[in-house]
Amino acid sequence: MNKKVAIIMGSMSDLPVMQDAIDVLKELQIETVVDVVSAHRTPEKMFDFGKNAHNRGIAVIIAGAGGAAHLPGMVASLSPLPVIGVPVKSSNSIDGWDSVLSILQMPGGVPVATVALNGAKNAGILAAQILGATQEDIRDRIVDYKETLKKKVTDAAAHMRSHE
Amino acid sequence: MNKKVAIIMGSMSDLPVMQDAIDVLKELQIETVVDVVSAHRTPEKMFDFGKNAHNRGIAVIIAGAGGAAHLPGMVASLSPLPVIGVPVKSSNSIDGWDSVLSILQMPGGVPVATVALNGAKNAGILAAQILGATQEDIRDRIVDYKETLKKKVTDAAAHMRSHE
Amino acid sequence: MNKKVAIIMGSMSDLPVMQDAIDVLKELQIETVVDVVSAHRTPEKMFDFGKNAHNRGIAVIIAGAGGAAHLPGMVASLSPLPVIGVPVKSSNSIDGWDSVLSILQMPGGVPVATVALNGAKNAGILAAQILGATQEDIRDRIVDYKETLKKKVTDAAAHMRSHE
Amino acid sequence: MNKKVAIIMGSMSDLPVMQDAIDVLKELQIETVVDVVSAHRTPEKMFDFGKNAHNRGIAVIIAGAGGAAHLPGMVASLSPLPVIGVPVKSSNSIDGWDSVLSILQMPGGVPVATVALNGAKNAGILAAQILGATQEDIRDRIVDYKETLKKKVTDAAAHMRSHE
Amino acid sequence: MNKKVAIIMGSMSDLPVMQDAIDVLKELQIETVVDVVSAHRTPEKMFDFGKNAHNRGIAVIIAGAGGAAHLPGMVASLSPLPVIGVPVKSSNSIDGWDSVLSILQMPGGVPVATVALNGAKNAGILAAQILGATQEDIRDRIVDYKETLKKKVTDAAAHMRSHE
Amino acid sequence: MNKKVAIIMGSMSDLPVMQDAIDVLKELQIETVVDVVSAHRTPEKMFDFGKNAHNRGIAVIIAGAGGAAHLPGMVASLSPLPVIGVPVKSSNSIDGWDSVLSILQMPGGVPVATVALNGAKNAGILAAQILGATQEDIRDRIVDYKETLKKKVTDAAAHMRSHE
Amino acid sequence: MNKKVAIIMGSMSDLPVMQDAIDVLKELQIETVVDVVSAHRTPEKMFDFGKNAHNRGIAVIIAGAGGAAHLPGMVASLSPLPVIGVPVKSSNSIDGWDSVLSILQMPGGVPVATVALNGAKNAGILAAQILGATQEDIRDRIVDYKETLKKKVTDAAAHMRSHE
Amino acid sequence: MNKKVAIIMGSMSDLPVMQDAIDVLKELQIETVVDVVSAHRTPEKMFDFGKNAHNRGIAVIIAGAGGAAHLPGMVASLSPLPVIGVPVKSSNSIDGWDSVLSILQMPGGVPVATVALNGAKNAGILAAQILGATQEDIRDRIVDYKETLKKKVTDAAAHMRSHE
Repeated sequence: MNKKVAIIMGSMSDLPVMQDAIDVLKELQIETVVDVVSAHRTPEKMFDFGKNAHNRGIAVIIAGAGGAAHLPGMVASLSPLPVIGVPVKSSNSIDGWDSVLSILQMPGGVPVATVALNGAKNAGILAAQILGATQEDIRDRIVDYKETLKKKVTDAAAHMRSHE
Repeated sequence: MNKKVAIIMGSMSDLPVMQDAIDVLKELQIETVVDVVSAHRTPEKMFDFGKNAHNRGIAVIIAGAGGAAHLPGMVASLSPLPVIGVPVKSSNSIDGWDSVLSILQMPGGVPVATVALNGAKNAGILAAQILGATQEDIRDRIVDYKETLKKKVTDAAAHMRSHE
Repeated sequence: MNKKVAIIMGSMSDLPVMQDAIDVLKELQIETVVDVVSAHRTPEKMFDFGKNAHNRGIAVIIAGAGGAAHLPGMVASLSPLPVIGVPVKSSNSIDGWDSVLSILQMPGGVPVATVALNGAKNAGILAAQILGATQEDIRDRIVDYKETLKKKVTDAAAHMRSHE
Repeated sequence: MNKKVAIIMGSMSDLPVMQDAIDVLKELQIETVVDVVSAHRTPEKMFDFGKNAHNRGIAVIIAGAGGAAHLPGMVASLSPLPVIGVPVKSSNSIDGWDSVLSILQMPGGVPVATVALNGAKNAGILAAQILGATQEDIRDRIVDYKETLKKKVTDAAAHMRSHE
Repeated sequence: MNKKVAIIMGSMSDLPVMQDAIDVLKELQIETVVDVVSAHRTPEKMFDFGKNAHNRGIAVIIAGAGGAAHLPGMVASLSPLPVIGVPVKSSNSIDGWDSVLSILQMPGGVPVATVALNGAKNAGILAAQILGATQEDIRDRIVDYKETLKKKVTDAAAHMRSHE
Repeated sequence: MNKKVAIIMGSMSDLPVMQDAIDVLKELQIETVVDVVSAHRTPEKMFDFGKNAHNRGIAVIIAGAGGAAHLPGMVASLSPLPVIGVPVKSSNSIDGWDSVLSILQMPGGVPVATVALNGAKNAGILAAQILGATQEDIRDRIVDYKETLKKKVTDAAAHMRSHE
Repeated sequence: MNKKVAIIMGSMSDLPVMQDAIDVLKELQIETVVDVVSAHRTPEKMFDFGKNAHNRGIAVIIAGAGGAAHLPGMVASLSPLPVIGVPVKSSNSIDGWDSVLSILQMPGGVPVATVALNGAKNAGILAAQILGATQEDIRDRIVDYKETLKKKVTDAAAHMRSHE
Repeated sequence: MNKKVAIIMGSMSDLPVMQDAIDVLKELQIETVVDVVSAHRTPEKMFDFGKNAHNRGIAVIIAGAGGAAHLPGMVASLSPLPVIGVPVKSSNSIDGWDSVLSILQMPGGVPVATVALNGAKNAGILAAQILGATQEDIRDRIVDYKETLKKKVTDAAAHMRSHE
């Protein structure tokens, strides 16, 4: 059974954003594969990656890109696996709207599971939830993870009230 | 193992859009559960649904809503399952921007897999891909489905050329 | 009779913005309750807060949140009290549009009294005006407050003319 | 004690939208005063209205306007009462953005409680909630009103399931 | 005959932007009157200003304001004189869209001559052009002014070519 | 002294919108000159028009155009007269934003007095106000015109109250 | 020497828009090749088309697509030929913004010559201008074509003046 | 045969952006002509440039401008050559939307080949591709250039994997 999550990005400059996905998947004990794959500069590599990912033990693909971001949609076109798209706010982006719309607004037949602008952390959690949809041990780790989030908010609230 | 896909919507008026998700899942032979659950008018029902979905044989949740669309994000907050959000362009929506942004821009820790505005068909396909991430028979059906899409385009192109 | 104004926020990082509401209510001599309540990370606490606020001496709720901001709308769904929503421009927000639209565009039946982006000061004044709608002593303090604003502008204008 | 809700609008063409506020307040048994007051064509009338509303038994003002909508903000400037603004999507509006932003984005010191585009019904409910903040009988009617909304959704859901 | 240009602004914080209008009018030898007039904090002063400007030797009014900018439109409502509106990009503005739309989108009957965001310099030139529409000596100064602009560009181009 | 107002438009398809300017100027007894002048299809005619308008008895130019609307700005570049720009919402416009921004956002030195989207009526009134800035008889007609607007609103309000 | 212009589109539903490019190129006597090529449904066909177009006598490629429009950018990635992108306003598009931004905002290294929303006619003319950049006979036809446009405007203006 | 590429810009302040076009064309061994030509401040120079460029050995024109950017469209109106427009994000631009829309949204008959916001590098490459459409040696240089881009991405990916 495929178990790995692939994290690909259109450019090395996307790595500071995409690192959040790598980190949260490590925290959730899920194996990752990381690569730079550019839809526009290395289209053949992208084709090869998209066509074969499901034969390489990969179960979910996370793809991050900025501007006219075609990587997530093109990989979704080439692969039968679920693809999570992370719109990256790159330097000449028009406030991120270009990345968001060119990933989100896919035509009927080829979905991309889009997360928030620069939302790589959520992409990682979503990938884990996708694995957890059919694997209970992973789902349990997500339940634990959510408890940690809750505790942080509760502690912050307690701290604030103690300083009023 | 959980195998069902739940399709919930904030209002009966969302059904014409959400029906596309129901139809494509039926076509892909995946069992569905359908309900109207309003974040703002039936919050208790939503709480109960979100807390218990994973104990009712549900593996993936599709939630559609319009305007200030809180249903997908709130269910994602309550459930460990992957949640797919469908922004619905409702009557008093500001061109759909409100639905898109209030579903997409979730904070770190609580992802919603957002699809295009009114993109319920893609939500259904994505739910199948999520099940197919770890189940090969479902993945095979998605590969077949994609071949059908390809054939439609190829036939249309042939038809157009024959009429030039 | 309920007299307190509750100020809740989705995250500790919203406090620098929300402090303006706390300060102006103190200046207007209105009792406040402050807490961190996250719709997405502490949904049970939010439910409890929304369901019971009107039984705890609270008359008005101010809720601030950023991004896909569901806290104000969800609390409005759970409470019969008037809820004032403050869209907070958080770090990964798309220029604040996401916070504004996900608070403002509530469906029919569940209003949120929305103020300007980062407009916590106005949220505080509005809460005082709501109490003053039926209590004349509070309304008188608002009249005084407005006179102070007027004087500041008049003084600035006089100062500018004296330096021409 | 002031008990009436005033509903004013910038133009007779706003009445079809604003009627929803009048209707829901009638349903909630709250007395209303209705008038056409244009910030730009009858500024003196607007001044008189804003300055004196709180001396005429009015507790809350609902003001609807479209385009560069100055009526809600100007009345808020002139009156110590809480003012609810309804952005109206008028014919030459740029998709409603002009009405929304010119009502919502008030400067510090002069809040307008803004509701959704064309959200007059919610303006009416909010006005009732403001009266109910300090009057328990009105708050009870709001609780009942919310129960009605809930029942409608529950009935619709039951109806849908019975036809699956 | 009225000959003066009034420059008013909603807040002292608008002065750094509005100074450009004062400077260019001085350069074009046109007499100015400068004041701080806030639509929302000093509505009575604004009323008085708008009602009487044309009796005080003023021929054109320039009004600058940010956010929900009501000053230009309200003064245009009160005065028969041409009013030039300068949208100011203030600190909590949503990228300036709020100022632009709440000044530009005036209803039929009450025009505001809107210039670019922060375009106070152009407001000054436009005021001079308005005076020049019927006074040839002022129009001649505008012709000269435009020649200066042209020369600057021509010189820059020559300089660039000489450094190629 | 120049007394005429020129109304030019980029295309015959702009006439239904621009007719409002012609009509209101006739109502205000101001002489008009009307022509179709396309910046992109008849650039030489535009150049000739812009260079010579002030020598043909014209005091104010109203220019309407849609999409990438260059006519108002180019004529402002060529003429010392005040130019009023009317953004027209043409068929393939992106909701009018293109027309608005390409007319409004002129660089320093070359103002265009921009009115609302499709706001040709206000362009006509503004042209009259510009003439009235230095001519009292025209200003008096504007005062009368504004009284008519006021009366219409007052009558509508009276009518509405009589039918309550 | 390559002389043909290829016109490809992502879906048969784009043909009514793209026909304008075919028609204007026929009018300018330039040979065309037309096909339906979907980036997302027929990625292999797109790859083959992009890789080989310059070996099939094609000199310029016009690609039209709607929503998250990846066809123009992907073909530009695969081909050394100039690619003209036509953003098509499709049915579930968010007012065309998605098509525009996902075609226009290409990263450095891979340009797409983008024309206006639904601007297929201009795409055809631009393709002819590209051929005409180095072939004088084609450039002459463009000069003639522009004269026709000019004459239409001049005739319309004459017609309008004769009916005043 | 015309072989040069002209690079013009509306203001010296656009040079830091436009330099990228000059540099990439030098790298591709294509002769350039550079000038500052302002549509609004030097309209006569622009007219002369547009009318005569094709007689001065120029084959392609690149025009960059910000705000209400009329230079690319006006030059396209005056010249039979292909014109590439570069929207420049200038200081008082509204996030670049004004430059983009006033260059992109040209009316039927007068295309501008628009590239991304600040995308001068792509404008240079596109100009080379236009020359290469009919000249094989230039097309070969573009093929080489694209190989360089590909190698950079492949090297970066290899480097990243070696540091995992």
